[in-house]
Amino acid sequence: MISHTTSYTITVRIQGPRKIGLVHNILGMIAAAGGSIGAIDLVEQCAEHWLRDFTIHCENPEHEKKITRAIKSVADIKVIAVSDETFRMHLGGKLTVEGKFPLTTRAQLSMAYTPGVGRVSSYVSEDPTRAWSLTIKKNTVAVVSDGTAVLGLGDLGPEGAMPVMEGKAMLFKEFGGVDAFPLCIAEKDPDKIVEFCRQIAPTFGGINLEDISAPRCFYIEEKLKELVDIPVFHDDQHGTAVVVTAAAHNALKLVNKNFKNLKVVVLGVGAAGVACSKMLLASGVSNIIGVDRHGILYDGRDTNGNEMKAWFAAHTNPEKVQGDVQKALEGADLFLGLSGPNLVKADWLKKMAKDPIIFAMSNPVPEIMPEAAAKYATVIATGRSDYPNQINNVLCFPGIFRGALDAHARDINEEMKIAAAMGIASCVDDKKLGPDYIIPSVFDRNVSKTVTRNVVAAAHDSGVAQRRRAVTQIMPGI
Amino acid sequence: MISHTTSYTITVRIQGPRKIGLVHNILGMIAAAGGSIGAIDLVEQCAEHWLRDFTIHCENPEHEKKITRAIKSVADIKVIAVSDETFRMHLGGKLTVEGKFPLTTRAQLSMAYTPGVGRVSSYVSEDPTRAWSLTIKKNTVAVVSDGTAVLGLGDLGPEGAMPVMEGKAMLFKEFGGVDAFPLCIAEKDPDKIVEFCRQIAPTFGGINLEDISAPRCFYIEEKLKELVDIPVFHDDQHGTAVVVTAAAHNALKLVNKNFKNLKVVVLGVGAAGVACSKMLLASGVSNIIGVDRHGILYDGRDTNGNEMKAWFAAHTNPEKVQGDVQKALEGADLFLGLSGPNLVKADWLKKMAKDPIIFAMSNPVPEIMPEAAAKYATVIATGRSDYPNQINNVLCFPGIFRGALDAHARDINEEMKIAAAMGIASCVDDKKLGPDYIIPSVFDRNVSKTVTRNVVAAAHDSGVAQRRRAVTQIMPGI
Repeated sequence: MISHTTSYTITVRIQGPRKIGLVHNILGMIAAAGGSIGAIDLVEQCAEHWLRDFTIHCENPEHEKKITRAIKSVADIKVIAVSDETFRMHLGGKLTVEGKFPLTTRAQLSMAYTPGVGRVSSYVSEDPTRAWSLTIKKNTVAVVSDGTAVLGLGDLGPEGAMPVMEGKAMLFKEFGGVDAFPLCIAEKDPDKIVEFCRQIAPTFGGINLEDISAPRCFYIEEKLKELVDIPVFHDDQHGTAVVVTAAAHNALKLVNKNFKNLKVVVLGVGAAGVACSKMLLASGVSNIIGVDRHGILYDGRDTNGNEMKAWFAAHTNPEKVQGDVQKALEGADLFLGLSGPNLVKADWLKKMAKDPIIFAMSNPVPEIMPEAAAKYATVIATGRSDYPNQINNVLCFPGIFRGALDAHARDINEEMKIAAAMGIASCVDDKKLGPDYIIPSVFDRNVSKTVTRNVVAAAHDSGVAQRRRAVTQIMPGI
Repeated sequence: MISHTTSYTITVRIQGPRKIGLVHNILGMIAAAGGSIGAIDLVEQCAEHWLRDFTIHCENPEHEKKITRAIKSVADIKVIAVSDETFRMHLGGKLTVEGKFPLTTRAQLSMAYTPGVGRVSSYVSEDPTRAWSLTIKKNTVAVVSDGTAVLGLGDLGPEGAMPVMEGKAMLFKEFGGVDAFPLCIAEKDPDKIVEFCRQIAPTFGGINLEDISAPRCFYIEEKLKELVDIPVFHDDQHGTAVVVTAAAHNALKLVNKNFKNLKVVVLGVGAAGVACSKMLLASGVSNIIGVDRHGILYDGRDTNGNEMKAWFAAHTNPEKVQGDVQKALEGADLFLGLSGPNLVKADWLKKMAKDPIIFAMSNPVPEIMPEAAAKYATVIATGRSDYPNQINNVLCFPGIFRGALDAHARDINEEMKIAAAMGIASCVDDKKLGPDYIIPSVFDRNVSKTVTRNVVAAAHDSGVAQRRRAVTQIMPGI
């Protein structure tokens, strides 16, 4: 099966003579090569020739070559250009910085800049917390990455990480009304990354750490939380944990189980695996078994000096089970995959407890494909948009930062994360809850609003809100 | 004389009974208090009462109090609220970060973010210079400040500096089409500021250093230029120097003098004073006398370990003149004030050479007011918008960075600065050149275009352009 995704779309510009059946022939060749056709736009036409743009979804670079080769084999036509929609969309970057009003008169200039701005600067300087009302701090988050763990692609460096961080900033704006700015830095020393974030804190209302490799990310976040008075949130850890907890909450409702007495297997003990496990432990789960590339983690196993794995081994797997993931799955209720493609065989699911729940979140290729898991699993979720139950961080981070900024919170704490998870879960109506609908759509605009409301309330209740509680909460908070 | 500026405008909301002559009375009290009236907006009116907003320009906080006291003394009326327009304009900050297109469909989401973005990130990672075409680097400049020398107000800290840096970013966009983002940092150690800028370099196409105190700013800029391959430009130094050189070029044309054989007095040997002097030296001036708060700088004078002042003393004042600014002005052709208010007396100008040129740029109050200098000086320029010949950095920095980005320059070098200065000077038509018009208006849109064109050409000619020379240059460069 070829899994076409709209994320890999090419546009092939073709010139051809006006001849009956020619377009039909071209489409035949595209179909034979496995290309899924999108729009066919007529660019120009004269008495003898036409110029058309064929939009074709393909799977990967080899597939693209196969399709263009097939097209070129059609007689009489000429391929003028092949362009990749995703690359075209990225030309010049995806973000702009805009002034909130134009500067076209001397009056505007003298208020927004010198000399008028001097009074505002002096006023803020007398009490720096005034920056929360008179500067962009109020609504602005830094998206900081060193590029060491970009998506599942590894260390792509700061420049390589930029397209992802720009996309993240777009999502912040689109779904949370948050102004986010990407800062991809040429720095890998954890202490220096901490120092960097401390330095930028006055400018921002929050810091979203992103795609920083484990175990460095744990150290950086922990140190930084001690140093700054704005929320620090490593989305790869906590965003994932919040959405997984929301999905698990609804899945358990469906199969009539609860967090207590649950056996959970976590494959992949990196940033996300550790954070998900911690949040499940906090939710009442007591039996979690972590599995890394060396097998099941248990107290006493060599963890190569990785402090977080040592902690994990000591605080999970109470029965000290040893072996591989297949062994771990015996009697498990929930499988959580945060590792790599095709690491789990369908057969292994047979020995899981009744009504197995499978969250196979490796992207783009899950630990086990939903088609294969369907034979044994009751509920299946992935990270993909082309299957039901997409576990996507965008359900969490825009609303959680929106709420933190609105409450002017000095931290995003456990209470706020749980409030966010319950907010996401609550967006699935009990009447509509089903095996194919345990988590709301990323396009459900109600999610961000609900998460925001819950997070603001939790910030106040847990004492980290620095703004007075508003009688009515307005979205997005201005 | 009260100098009203539109940068200090209050709006007073007043409720009053509908009584003949009452508004007249109010205006009388405002005038008596020296307030200049702007708009008078009727907000509401019923049979008995009206509600009006009076917009009033005032001079300073004391003046504001005087005006509101005067208004309150009018019988029968009630002052509902007094709001400050400049502060109101700053609420929530002055910048937003926007995505270049919406994310409302799965297709858009899967191209701008995962999974499609992964291909773009991998591609950039293979050759990081590709960030120049596929990320915001192409059009984005960091405005970095530690807040130690904000305007003429001193060390206001990073939060206090933010309103100024946000305003700067607005000007970058409005006049150069450049996306600029302010980064005000909690860091005063020069080496750590250098390190910070090195870390952020992958994200940006240029770094504009701003309001960093001297002599630290010299060290930071020099070190940084060695470390990064993007342009670094300390605007307080070089922006000022470029505009002063442009203004001096035109003023000299007017009085039939040239840079050679010119005697220049520079009052204030900080960041701007040093940079202006260096650029004048490079333009052919050989006799420059610098004056700081201890008097004239000469070779051998104690400079308290300030290396830049020691350099200055060794490379200027060839006749080793000693004394104060009055002494220095004897026989001088050009006075350059970059110091503080009211430091020069009109009498002192008597002994200057024929056709004295006075650039009194202390802001908001110049070294000598134009009215006072007019008795002796042929050409007078200030930093103020309410007198002719405003020497304003906004004539330089948007165009110089626009040009540097368009040429993909790895530096902003001397050749580019001189090209920028000549570009600004050329925007004053020879036929219109006169004592009140040596420098174009900040609203002359031709300036940024001319500076850009000149800077791009100079970048290519001097070998720092990394993009191939375009046959036609498009503005702003996408």
